[in-house]
Amino acid sequence: MEAPIRIGLFGLGKAGKEVAEQMLSDPAVELAWVVRSGRSASPVLLTKEVPICFSGEVRLNDLIEQNHVDFVVDFSTADSCLDYAEIAAQKGVGIISAVSAYKKHHLACLKKASKKTAVLYSPNITLGINFIIIAGKILRKLAPHAGVEVVEEHFHDKKEVSGTAIRIAELLDLDPAKQVNSVRVGGIVGRHEIIFGFPYQTIRLIHDSISRAAFGQGALYAIKNLYGRPKGFYTMEQLVAEGFSAALS
Amino acid sequence: MEAPIRIGLFGLGKAGKEVAEQMLSDPAVELAWVVRSGRSASPVLLTKEVPICFSGEVRLNDLIEQNHVDFVVDFSTADSCLDYAEIAAQKGVGIISAVSAYKKHHLACLKKASKKTAVLYSPNITLGINFIIIAGKILRKLAPHAGVEVVEEHFHDKKEVSGTAIRIAELLDLDPAKQVNSVRVGGIVGRHEIIFGFPYQTIRLIHDSISRAAFGQGALYAIKNLYGRPKGFYTMEQLVAEGFSAALS
Amino acid sequence: MEAPIRIGLFGLGKAGKEVAEQMLSDPAVELAWVVRSGRSASPVLLTKEVPICFSGEVRLNDLIEQNHVDFVVDFSTADSCLDYAEIAAQKGVGIISAVSAYKKHHLACLKKASKKTAVLYSPNITLGINFIIIAGKILRKLAPHAGVEVVEEHFHDKKEVSGTAIRIAELLDLDPAKQVNSVRVGGIVGRHEIIFGFPYQTIRLIHDSISRAAFGQGALYAIKNLYGRPKGFYTMEQLVAEGFSAALS
Amino acid sequence: MEAPIRIGLFGLGKAGKEVAEQMLSDPAVELAWVVRSGRSASPVLLTKEVPICFSGEVRLNDLIEQNHVDFVVDFSTADSCLDYAEIAAQKGVGIISAVSAYKKHHLACLKKASKKTAVLYSPNITLGINFIIIAGKILRKLAPHAGVEVVEEHFHDKKEVSGTAIRIAELLDLDPAKQVNSVRVGGIVGRHEIIFGFPYQTIRLIHDSISRAAFGQGALYAIKNLYGRPKGFYTMEQLVAEGFSAALS
Repeated sequence: MEAPIRIGLFGLGKAGKEVAEQMLSDPAVELAWVVRSGRSASPVLLTKEVPICFSGEVRLNDLIEQNHVDFVVDFSTADSCLDYAEIAAQKGVGIISAVSAYKKHHLACLKKASKKTAVLYSPNITLGINFIIIAGKILRKLAPHAGVEVVEEHFHDKKEVSGTAIRIAELLDLDPAKQVNSVRVGGIVGRHEIIFGFPYQTIRLIHDSISRAAFGQGALYAIKNLYGRPKGFYTMEQLVAEGFSAALS
Repeated sequence: MEAPIRIGLFGLGKAGKEVAEQMLSDPAVELAWVVRSGRSASPVLLTKEVPICFSGEVRLNDLIEQNHVDFVVDFSTADSCLDYAEIAAQKGVGIISAVSAYKKHHLACLKKASKKTAVLYSPNITLGINFIIIAGKILRKLAPHAGVEVVEEHFHDKKEVSGTAIRIAELLDLDPAKQVNSVRVGGIVGRHEIIFGFPYQTIRLIHDSISRAAFGQGALYAIKNLYGRPKGFYTMEQLVAEGFSAALS
Repeated sequence: MEAPIRIGLFGLGKAGKEVAEQMLSDPAVELAWVVRSGRSASPVLLTKEVPICFSGEVRLNDLIEQNHVDFVVDFSTADSCLDYAEIAAQKGVGIISAVSAYKKHHLACLKKASKKTAVLYSPNITLGINFIIIAGKILRKLAPHAGVEVVEEHFHDKKEVSGTAIRIAELLDLDPAKQVNSVRVGGIVGRHEIIFGFPYQTIRLIHDSISRAAFGQGALYAIKNLYGRPKGFYTMEQLVAEGFSAALS
Repeated sequence: MEAPIRIGLFGLGKAGKEVAEQMLSDPAVELAWVVRSGRSASPVLLTKEVPICFSGEVRLNDLIEQNHVDFVVDFSTADSCLDYAEIAAQKGVGIISAVSAYKKHHLACLKKASKKTAVLYSPNITLGINFIIIAGKILRKLAPHAGVEVVEEHFHDKKEVSGTAIRIAELLDLDPAKQVNSVRVGGIVGRHEIIFGFPYQTIRLIHDSISRAAFGQGALYAIKNLYGRPKGFYTMEQLVAEGFSAALS
């Protein structure tokens, strides 16, 4: 049996905790340490013991030197990457970020790191969402005259349009203002539907989220897929599209 | 066996033709005559022979005297009611109208007729739509805190928001501008979904139209249900709500 | 403000814990104590402190005398009712049970208690499921010729057919062996769809479970609705049907 | 503008008529003639005039000599291919068959013809069905541990399990007896749903048929795609899979 891929995780909020649990239950990876925000002091229990550091109190350089990892995985906030990207790049540690709120300078920081190490960035890192995106892109090419709209449904308190739905619209060459419909009711975890309308048939590609643990599964897919790859900037869509090509050959 | 209920039909367009066919295949009613627009000369074949008159060439008074009917059923255009409403009212002939494009004076004309005969008006006369409307109204009362949105899907060329969806919104006390989402792709005949979101569960009431013949089925339901009732103004929603009460008792 | 309705809860498994949390967050009720199985010693943390007793170690009679409740609510196993039903009946404490695995003698025990106190039994106590059941029963009466099938979807490890789906079939006069279709994949929490097929339209009544906390919401609905009612045997379907009638009048 | 691709059509039943109409409305093809069964004498009106022969009265050899076609397209019954396959093969006329009821000797007959001409056989020739099949096959490879089931819904009078659903099951390596669920209610034209269940997410690939005209659109896709290809045996799935590869490159 091969040695597990070693991971350092940034973020231990709702998504981060679920991601940590997924990593703890997969023997192919080892969660070496977690860095969480120092501002909140509420304790988080994980099912196995893992060193948890607070972001304000840890020197990343020391942490990586003492406890080497193959990848840092980021489910924290936008600014974290400004701390770890350069250090990780210098040490050849891969970077996988699923933070959705990046601005231009955050992306620039990751792109710079990708000159020296493998960096993957995807604001929605689930296999399912990326599967329907790639399938949808293909159907757009096969049937350019079909009408396309997106319906996304989320819990009442999600105020903004789903970033994933906007990303789907961009990649499928749709107008987010006209072709994305947002439903906000109750406690729906997350549902994205791409509807392709033909004169005599309709195709629906639907992704239903059950829990945030799907992010952890997506991160594991990315980690295993990216392991051993050369430096460069990757996206989850790209990995899934490669999976399509491999499956077809 | 009782004598069939006799019907005069206005309108022989796409919906009207389907309605006529439904009437021809139900032994409980007899389609006595059809009045269609004289402007279009394209022939319409029905599966049985029925006298077809052109609206510009027929005197309604004579038509009803010579060929008595219990109900006139209207699937034509808004102005037709201005011709037949008073004559029907005087002769005690019931009126069932499913025309969607009425303005105030058309409705006033039907309301006036309802002082003398039974008049039913419903822009969407299918049993299914009215069922989800009444079920939805009840759920609003049972769970006033649940969030509600409507998604309606239709063929690409339907430019306006579904009148049925707007009616659903009105009856469920929703804001049509915010809580009705319209999808327009391909050849979807018609789909209306009312989504009730609770914190930990979601209820969906969905109506899928397969063909316009559903209007004929709805008209038959209205005819049989209205037959023998006193004068007055009725709606399909009201008949279906009565059906709910009867089923519960 | 009125005094909260006092509750004693049996069961602190996956469902029981969620139900307890719902009760703790609703000021209209007060969770006075919990009785859980003594066999498992794994600790359960609730967000507020509530006395937790082990079923093997507690004398129910004393518990109720010392810490009076208006209702016992049961989300534990079938045999619990054999312990509490008679004691609760004697003291006029209402009983609400959502245990699904009852055999005849368990039901007989609850029925006997209902001679002296109000007893509600529903194996699926969510408002949503009972709403689609009552709506479905009504539609069966309105449209007796429509075809009906049920599709239920659950997580892969649920081996048996959904008890809720079988209950839907019974109440809608369907053959569970032919008209209930069971899908078992992945981690679907629970989805029940009743499909009514007409020649030219289809109506779908769908209930999607998001989490077991919906059981707690249903129990709260039952508690508030049953409070102050006379002795007798009630079901959730009956309460929801009453809600339909009230909404229609 | 290039000369249209010339077509001879076998079959003028419900599907055949819709296919003929689709061909008549696409300038890229020309419907040269139709051969229909002589047993039924009910007239079929097409929107344009096309020579219609009865299968018992026509000599195919003469028909093709006098009125050359590039493809014969077959939406008739299983035995037709026994008549035309060898003649078409000898003359280099391509064959596209969408007949679903073939037995082994019918398929053998088409395979033999494919030694001399291009032959495509697909019992469901719509782009949509073949799209969800190929997308489903890919997802099986990307996520071999996901659970998969198929739900197919059709009108009440369709007695047998959908041949398309069985084909989906075969190609996705499922057990048709366990993993295909059939709903039969009302007038549903045809709906196929492939459900992929993951622990924390669900993906649904859904195809809704609106009318049989979708077969015509699928035949046109096949005709244009097959035109100019070398002899051999093709399937619609294969053409669509090629479309996937082309879209990805």
